[in-house]
Amino acid sequence: MIIEEKPRQQETPAKPAYKVIGTRPVRPDGVEKVIGRAKYGADIDLPGMLYGKVLRSPVAHAYIRSIDTSAAEKLPGVKAVVTSADLPRLSSNEYIDMGEGGGQLQDLHDNILASRKVLYKGHAIASVAATNPHIAEEALSLIKLDLEELPPVLDPLEAMREDAPLLDDQRYTESLAGRSSKPSNIARHAQHAIGDIEAGFAQADVIVEREYRTSMVHQGYIEPQNGTALWDADDHITVWTSTQGAFSVRAELSKLLLVPLAQIRVIPMEIGGGFGGKIAVYLEPVAALLSRKAGRPVKMTMTRAEVLEATGPTSGTYIKLKMGAKKDGRLIAAQAYMVYESGAYPSSPLGAGMSCMLGPYDIPNVLIDGYDVVVNKPRTAAYRAPGAPAAAFAAESLVDELAGKVGLDPLTFRRINASKLGTRLANGNVLPRVGNYECITAAMESEHWNAPLSAPWRGRGVASGVWYNWGGLSSLTASVNADGSVTLTEGSTDIGGSRATAAMQLAEALGIPYESIHPFVADTDNIGYNDVTGGSRTTFATGWAVYEAAQQIKRQLIERAARLWECSETDVDYTNGVLTCKTNPDLRLSFKEMAEKAHSTGGTIVGCGNPSPKQFGPAFATHIVDVEVDPETGKVQILRYTAIQDVGTAIHPSYVEGQIQGGVAQGVGWALNEVYDYDEQGRLRNASLLDYRQPTTLDLPMIDTILVEVPNPTHPYGVRGVGEVPIVPPLAAVANAIAHATGQRFLKLPLNPDAVLRGLGKIK
Amino acid sequence: MIIEEKPRQQETPAKPAYKVIGTRPVRPDGVEKVIGRAKYGADIDLPGMLYGKVLRSPVAHAYIRSIDTSAAEKLPGVKAVVTSADLPRLSSNEYIDMGEGGGQLQDLHDNILASRKVLYKGHAIASVAATNPHIAEEALSLIKLDLEELPPVLDPLEAMREDAPLLDDQRYTESLAGRSSKPSNIARHAQHAIGDIEAGFAQADVIVEREYRTSMVHQGYIEPQNGTALWDADDHITVWTSTQGAFSVRAELSKLLLVPLAQIRVIPMEIGGGFGGKIAVYLEPVAALLSRKAGRPVKMTMTRAEVLEATGPTSGTYIKLKMGAKKDGRLIAAQAYMVYESGAYPSSPLGAGMSCMLGPYDIPNVLIDGYDVVVNKPRTAAYRAPGAPAAAFAAESLVDELAGKVGLDPLTFRRINASKLGTRLANGNVLPRVGNYECITAAMESEHWNAPLSAPWRGRGVASGVWYNWGGLSSLTASVNADGSVTLTEGSTDIGGSRATAAMQLAEALGIPYESIHPFVADTDNIGYNDVTGGSRTTFATGWAVYEAAQQIKRQLIERAARLWECSETDVDYTNGVLTCKTNPDLRLSFKEMAEKAHSTGGTIVGCGNPSPKQFGPAFATHIVDVEVDPETGKVQILRYTAIQDVGTAIHPSYVEGQIQGGVAQGVGWALNEVYDYDEQGRLRNASLLDYRQPTTLDLPMIDTILVEVPNPTHPYGVRGVGEVPIVPPLAAVANAIAHATGQRFLKLPLNPDAVLRGLGKIK
Repeated sequence: MIIEEKPRQQETPAKPAYKVIGTRPVRPDGVEKVIGRAKYGADIDLPGMLYGKVLRSPVAHAYIRSIDTSAAEKLPGVKAVVTSADLPRLSSNEYIDMGEGGGQLQDLHDNILASRKVLYKGHAIASVAATNPHIAEEALSLIKLDLEELPPVLDPLEAMREDAPLLDDQRYTESLAGRSSKPSNIARHAQHAIGDIEAGFAQADVIVEREYRTSMVHQGYIEPQNGTALWDADDHITVWTSTQGAFSVRAELSKLLLVPLAQIRVIPMEIGGGFGGKIAVYLEPVAALLSRKAGRPVKMTMTRAEVLEATGPTSGTYIKLKMGAKKDGRLIAAQAYMVYESGAYPSSPLGAGMSCMLGPYDIPNVLIDGYDVVVNKPRTAAYRAPGAPAAAFAAESLVDELAGKVGLDPLTFRRINASKLGTRLANGNVLPRVGNYECITAAMESEHWNAPLSAPWRGRGVASGVWYNWGGLSSLTASVNADGSVTLTEGSTDIGGSRATAAMQLAEALGIPYESIHPFVADTDNIGYNDVTGGSRTTFATGWAVYEAAQQIKRQLIERAARLWECSETDVDYTNGVLTCKTNPDLRLSFKEMAEKAHSTGGTIVGCGNPSPKQFGPAFATHIVDVEVDPETGKVQILRYTAIQDVGTAIHPSYVEGQIQGGVAQGVGWALNEVYDYDEQGRLRNASLLDYRQPTTLDLPMIDTILVEVPNPTHPYGVRGVGEVPIVPPLAAVANAIAHATGQRFLKLPLNPDAVLRGLGKIK
Repeated sequence: MIIEEKPRQQETPAKPAYKVIGTRPVRPDGVEKVIGRAKYGADIDLPGMLYGKVLRSPVAHAYIRSIDTSAAEKLPGVKAVVTSADLPRLSSNEYIDMGEGGGQLQDLHDNILASRKVLYKGHAIASVAATNPHIAEEALSLIKLDLEELPPVLDPLEAMREDAPLLDDQRYTESLAGRSSKPSNIARHAQHAIGDIEAGFAQADVIVEREYRTSMVHQGYIEPQNGTALWDADDHITVWTSTQGAFSVRAELSKLLLVPLAQIRVIPMEIGGGFGGKIAVYLEPVAALLSRKAGRPVKMTMTRAEVLEATGPTSGTYIKLKMGAKKDGRLIAAQAYMVYESGAYPSSPLGAGMSCMLGPYDIPNVLIDGYDVVVNKPRTAAYRAPGAPAAAFAAESLVDELAGKVGLDPLTFRRINASKLGTRLANGNVLPRVGNYECITAAMESEHWNAPLSAPWRGRGVASGVWYNWGGLSSLTASVNADGSVTLTEGSTDIGGSRATAAMQLAEALGIPYESIHPFVADTDNIGYNDVTGGSRTTFATGWAVYEAAQQIKRQLIERAARLWECSETDVDYTNGVLTCKTNPDLRLSFKEMAEKAHSTGGTIVGCGNPSPKQFGPAFATHIVDVEVDPETGKVQILRYTAIQDVGTAIHPSYVEGQIQGGVAQGVGWALNEVYDYDEQGRLRNASLLDYRQPTTLDLPMIDTILVEVPNPTHPYGVRGVGEVPIVPPLAAVANAIAHATGQRFLKLPLNPDAVLRGLGKIK
C-alpha cells in the first residue's frame, strides 16, 4: 500500500478578482481574418514587382561541379539570376540564436543557396526573378547543373557509423570532451546526469528497457513560406514576410547580407501558421539578392512540395530508454541514449528533448546521452515544444509499462513520482512552483478518467508532459489617445490571439475596458527588439511588457492629476480606471477624462515596456485518450480526448483551449499518420498534403480541456505560456491507449493502419 | 544724433564644440527621392482599389435644393456615391486645434461635403467611387444638382457691410464683448493693446498712415492633395495620405466620422510640399465614406484646378496702419485696423498676423483691431508663418517711410527700435532672448548692404520679420540594435529634412556617428501623438524628444555597464560614445560593444521622448533685396537677395539655408506675381499653374543667406525653428526696393507688370 503525500508548499493562492483577465472578448483581428481580408504575404502586390522561383536539387547528395545560368539570363522577361556566389562571403561563423531553431551562420548560408554540395533533395541551388512566375519557372529549366552524385545517408544510426558517407568533411563532433579528431556526421554529443546511475539501477526492483523510433514530421502550417523584398537604391532593404519573428528575420538578413540592422525593415504580414517553422529564413535573402540585381521588388512563394521537401520538419528520433522503479512505485533510475536527426545541418532540438523527457518525474539517478546527427534530409526547424513529443513518447510509454509492472494505475504512478517545486532535474535546473501534481490530480478526478470503457478493441491511455516555456525579450509602447482609447504597439507576431491577450492584460492593468485598446503588430522600424513568437513566451513576456508600460502610464496619470489638483502625488489614487484625491473626495477624473486633458497637462502619455524576464513558468499537462482499434483495417479511431493542463492564468480561456486543442490535433497526427516517407535515394515520396496525411476534423472528436490554474509566481498575472506543452503527451497517450486496446506495445510511430496490422501480426 | 546702445543681457554664449550638429551629412531619404522611387500618395496601388472623384459647385454661392445621384449610382463600374447625408451627424461643434489651421468642427464638416449651401466655386457636393477614374468622372456628370443661386460676396470690406449677402445666417461675430446680436460675415473681432494709443500719438513727431492690400495666394505645393482609405469590416480605417501631420488627420477623421482614434490608422506617405496647406483634410473622410459603402479601398487625387479652387489659400488682407515716431527715430505709437478674409469658413490666421506685424519693434503704445471675415472663396488654410507676411508687408513698408521721414537709414531705424529680451508685445507676451538686434547688425555689416547700387531703375530694400515659432508635442522612440545601429522611430512628417536633423541630434547626444542612426517616420499606430510638422516646431520639439530619448538610453547604458563591471553607476562615465569606469581604467566599452551585450544584460535598450515644451524660441530675420524695374514693361527683376536670420543653432546648415531660400522664393512670388484672380461671379480665372504665376528658377537669383546663431536658451541644443520667418520679410523688402528704384510707394500686392505700370502712370 502506497502512502501518497501531497507535496509541501503546493497551496495554490486564491485567484485575484480580475475584471478582464479570464473573460472571452472578440479578437481584434477576427473579422478581417474570417472574411478573408486580412493581409498575408501572398497578398503583397507592388508596382514593378517581379516573381522569384528557386531551382532545387533533384538528388539528395552531390558535389556541385558547375552551374551555368547564361541561358536563363537571356530568356526575355528574366531580370535577375542568383546563385550562392551572390551571397556575400561571411566574415564569421557565429551561432545565430533565434530563440528556437538557431544554428551556425555558415550552415544557414549554405542552406539558403547551396555552394559546394547539395545535401538533400530540394536544396536550393539558384533563383530567378522574372516578370511573371511562368517565365521564372521556364528560366529554371534553362539552368545547366553539373552534379557529381554521392550516396546519401538517411538513417541517423547509419549516419553515426564510421564508414557512413560524410555530409561535410569539415564537420566534427562537439562534446563536453571537446572536438572530435575525425570528421563525423555526429554534430554534437551532450550529456545530462544526476545521482549515480549504476547505484540507482542496483536499488531498482523493476527495470524496463525499450527502443523507440519516430519519423521526421512537418509543422504542417497551411500558409507556405513567402517573402517579398525591395532593396532600395540607398541600400535599405524592406521585406514583407510570414514569420514568427520579424526581428529574427532582420537579424538573419543582416548577418547573411552584411547590411546593418537599422537598414533592414521587416514587415510581418499575418501568418497562416508557424509552429516553429517560420523562424529560419529561406526565401527572404534570395528575394533581397534578386531585388538588388533587378532594382525592383521581388516576390517569392513556395509550393507545398517545396515546403515539405525544403523547410523545417522536426527530427526523426531513436531513443533507447531504461528505467527502474522500486516495488512501492518510486522511480529510482533512468538512462537514455537519444539520437536526433538534424537533417542536412545541425539544428535538432536534442537539448530540449533531453531536458523534457523525464521532466514530469522526480528521479534521483539519471544519465542521458544525446546525439545530434546530420543526414541527407532537409535542415530541421523548431516544431511546437521542439524535441519534447518524441522524448515523451519514449518516457511516457515506458512509465506506463512500469506502472503496470508495479501494479499501480498509470495516474497514481505518475503522481507518486511527480516532479514539483524543488525537484532537481538531470539538466541541473531546479523546478519552481509548478502544477504537475495538480494536473495529475485533476485527471484522476475527471469525469473522463472515471467513465467506463467496455467495448472490445477499445483502450484508454494517459501521458504527461512538460514544456519549460521561455521569456525572451519583448519591447512595446502604449500610447494614450486624446479620446481615452489606447494604441498598443507591439512587436510580437500574433499567432494564437496575442493581440487580444496583450490588450486584455493592458486593460486589466489600467482598469479600462478591453474595447478601448487597439493592439497593433509593428514592423522592425517601429518598435524595439522583440524575440520570436515561440517558446510559449508571448502572452508571458509581451504581457509582462504590457504590465510595465501600464505602470508607466499610471505614474504619469497620477503626476498629471497631482499637478491639476495641486496636491501631492502620494495623495492621488488610481484604481479601476479612476483617479481620486485622498484628501478631497470631490476631485475625481476617469482615465478617459484625464486622457482628454493629457496634451494640455504635460504632453503625450506613453508607456514603454522592455522587461527582461529571467524566470519562466514551466507548464505541465496530463492527457487522457480513448481509442478504438479496427482489427480488420488497423485504423485507430480517437473516441474521446481530454487534455488537462496547468495554464498558470488563462488570460483568454478560449484561446488557451484553442491552443490545447490544436496541440492535441497535431500530436494525434504525429502518433497515427504523419511520416516523412523517403525512398532509398532520399526522395520524399509524399510531398503533398494529399499523401502527407494530417488529421482533419473528421479524424478527431471535440478535444475536451480542463484548465488547471497554478499561477506563475514570477509573472504579474501568473502567466506561464500554454501553446507548446499540449503537443507533448498525445504521442504516448495514444500509443498507451492502443496498447490498452490491443494488449500490444507499439514502439515506433506513426501507428497508421499498416503499422497496426503489422503489430497485430495481420500482415508482414 | 542718435546714441545707439547695445541692449543689455544680449551676449551670445560661446557655441559648444558639437561633433555632428553643424555638419552637412547626406539625408537618409535623399537618393530614393532623387531617383523617383520614394513613395508618395499617388504611388498607392491596392488590390481591388477604386477611384474617387468629387462633384464640385459650379457657382460661388447657392442653396442646395436637391442632389439626385440615382443615375450615377446605376452607371456600370460605379461602386459608391456619397453626399453630406453620408457624413455622420455631429454630436458637438467643438474647435479642432490642429496647431495651425484649426477651425470649428461643423465648418470642417460642411467644407468636406456641402449640406445646406455651397459657399464657393469648387465646394465639394458629392463624390463617386468607381473602378476607374473615367467612369467616376462620367458618373459625376450624371448627378443632378438643383441649386438656388445667391449673390456672392468676394471682397472682405464689402462682406463686413450690414447689407452684404450673408454666407451663414447662423454666424455671429465673436469678440471680447461677447457674441453679436445680429448674424454677420464678421466671424471674429480681436484686439491687442498696450500703453495708451492716444497719448502715444500725441508724443509723436512724425506720423504716417497707409492702407495696404494683399490678395489670396496659394501655398503652391507641387503635389496635389490625395488620400486613399480602406474602411475594414471591423470598423478600423486605414488612410494613406500626403499630410503634415498624420495625427491631425486621425483626429479630424475621428471627429468627423465618429470613430475612436485607436481605430484609425493614418499612414503618412512622402509629402510633395505642404507649407500649412496639408493639415486640414479634404479627400480623406470622403474616401473613407466611399470605402465603407463599397467595401473596397478608394483612392482620390485632386487635379491642379481643384487644388487651387478648393484647398487652402491664405487670406487676402486689408490693413490700415498708422505709426508715429519721435524725431530721434524712436517709435512711440502704432494703430492698426486689420481685415483678414477667411474664405467660406472662419479660418484666417488673423491672430498670428496681429501678433507678428509689429513684433520686431519695441513700441510702448499699440492698438490693433483685427477682423476675421468670411467671403465666397475657399476656406483658407495655414501658409508658412500664417498671417505674418501680409502684416509685415504693411508694417515694414510703413517703417521704411518713417525711417526716411526721420532721416535715418532703414536698418539703423530698425535697430534703434528693435524688440529684444524683455520687450512687452501688444499681445501681452514678453520676449525671451532673441536675435533681432544681431540680425539687423549682421545686415548692416553685410557685403550686400555695403555694396554700391548705381544704375537707374535699381533699388535696394530691406525688411524685418518675426515668427514666434511653436513647440507642440513630439513623441518618439529610439531603439538600440544589437549591432550598434539605432532605429529612430518618430512621428513627424519630414518636409525639410527632419529625418536628418533628428538623427543628427540623436548622434550628438549619444556621441555616435550620424550614419549609425536610421530615422523612420511612423504611422499613427506605431508611435505616440505628434503634432503636425508646422509652426517651425519639428527640429525644435522632435529634437527635444530625441534628446530626452538619448538621456534614457545613456542611463541604461550606464546601468548595464555598472552591472557588468560590478561597480557603482556613479563610477561609470559615458562620453563621446564610450563607457569608462572611473575607478578602473582598464574597463572600457564603446556604444557598439555595449549594444552587442544589451540583450544579455537586461534586454532591449529603448529610449522614449515625450517632451511638452512650454517656451519656444522666436526667430527674427532681416532681408536685403536689390531690384531693377523695367519702366517699359513694368517687370521687376530680382538682382540680388540676402536673407539674414537668427537660426538659433543650425543643426544642418544646408537645410537651414534651403528653408530660407524657399521662403524667400515664395515671398517674392507673393510680392510680384501670385494672385487669386476672381471674376465678379466668384469664379477663379487662373486655376492652373500656367496662369497662377509662381516664380521659377529663371525669375530668381541665388538667394544668399547669413546664418546668425543666437541659441535658444530653453532648448538642449539652442534650436529655434527656421522654416517660417523667411517668408515674412520678402513682400515688404521687395516693395521697399521698388519704392527705392521708382520713387513710388506701392501699397497693394502683387506688383506684377500691370500693377507697376499703373503705379508709374504708364497705363490706367
